[in-house]
Amino acid sequence: MFKQLFDTESSTFTYLIVDELSKEAALIDPVDSQLHIYVDLLKQLGVKLKFALETHVHADHVTASGKLRQMLGIQTAVSQQCGATSADLQLNDGDELMLGQQIIKVIATPGHTAGSVSYLWQDRVFTGDALLINGCGRTDFQGGDAGTLYESITKRLFTLADETLVYPGHDYQGRRVSCIGQEKTINARLAGKSREAFIDIMQQLNLPKPKMIDIAVPANRKCGVDEDTALQG
Amino acid sequence: MFKQLFDTESSTFTYLIVDELSKEAALIDPVDSQLHIYVDLLKQLGVKLKFALETHVHADHVTASGKLRQMLGIQTAVSQQCGATSADLQLNDGDELMLGQQIIKVIATPGHTAGSVSYLWQDRVFTGDALLINGCGRTDFQGGDAGTLYESITKRLFTLADETLVYPGHDYQGRRVSCIGQEKTINARLAGKSREAFIDIMQQLNLPKPKMIDIAVPANRKCGVDEDTALQG
Repeated sequence: MFKQLFDTESSTFTYLIVDELSKEAALIDPVDSQLHIYVDLLKQLGVKLKFALETHVHADHVTASGKLRQMLGIQTAVSQQCGATSADLQLNDGDELMLGQQIIKVIATPGHTAGSVSYLWQDRVFTGDALLINGCGRTDFQGGDAGTLYESITKRLFTLADETLVYPGHDYQGRRVSCIGQEKTINARLAGKSREAFIDIMQQLNLPKPKMIDIAVPANRKCGVDEDTALQG
Repeated sequence: MFKQLFDTESSTFTYLIVDELSKEAALIDPVDSQLHIYVDLLKQLGVKLKFALETHVHADHVTASGKLRQMLGIQTAVSQQCGATSADLQLNDGDELMLGQQIIKVIATPGHTAGSVSYLWQDRVFTGDALLINGCGRTDFQGGDAGTLYESITKRLFTLADETLVYPGHDYQGRRVSCIGQEKTINARLAGKSREAFIDIMQQLNLPKPKMIDIAVPANRKCGVDEDTALQG
């Protein structure tokens, strides 16, 4: 089973993956403000959350992973490159997480942040802010690097089968899904673009500083929870 | 297994569905000029084609279904409403076709043509020219009717789960996949539109007559094959 959830405040997609046989579930990029929606949904579906997986340390929202760990005893997981030492699982490229007999594979896709990863499950890839629909994540903070992102997208993601479904971390125009073949063909920043042309595009974006970054990044390094407070609370 | 194929001449998508256990396969909307690509692909994958399924009697290309029947002994299938009496299976709403243990369900979605159907397989719906990505099929020939198409899309397709993947019969801008939630939210002809507003949009399109219609429609009513010639050849 698969569900795509959306936080309208940060335009963040959260994904629920369920292995039907074992009833084990994973949430990718859960958002703090949506915590009770997840808990209710898991209960309604009769499934057991095993993992909260982060595609990276987010700058635009606070993760629900730490609170889900407190409430449900799950494991939180994030790339080892993120500096989120409170996460239970410190992931590296090629790692495999098991939901029952189903595999969720970690693909390192740095560039938006140094620790950005994508998760491949069946024929679906959850790309976080590396590859977006007809776009990509910005590369001007948190160890971001346009050349690195170009390599991640063109050499790791674009080498997946054309039919592989792309589920991004955000969309701001109501789109929800794409596929590798579509992004290879029509992504305005990447289709037919050289590494140099891509770097040039990214350097000229001149985006404002994210409103939440000073709160979200330190919080997300702690799985969204102040552990000292949590221990008392 | 699932593959999405594309005929660049008519911008038609053809879909290959394979049941991995039985190795039985179905092609949805195969195109005559791509026949040898399908045959080579089936051989390469080691699968046995069981069905060629039409979403409707096409006006823009000739089907490969009749030739596939001649070559591989498959069954051709199309809605009973299409008047394609040479097809082996005359489908009705709710019919279920089996690939091994996997079900392909017929959903009547008339409006582009009187006999248009969609096929639901797992969490994927193949919508032909009823629902396109951010659009829909025209309704001004072959028994087309805008009000009927509105009902088909809003009452049959938009009642599927939001995550249901939409695989259309065509796209002219390089897009390949959408989902019900996306189309409900941002399809320019349908999202938030009343039946009357939709009919008005469709009436004002003033599209030219399709170049292939006088050849394609009579040919497709015979599964793309002149049976008299075929018997001799």
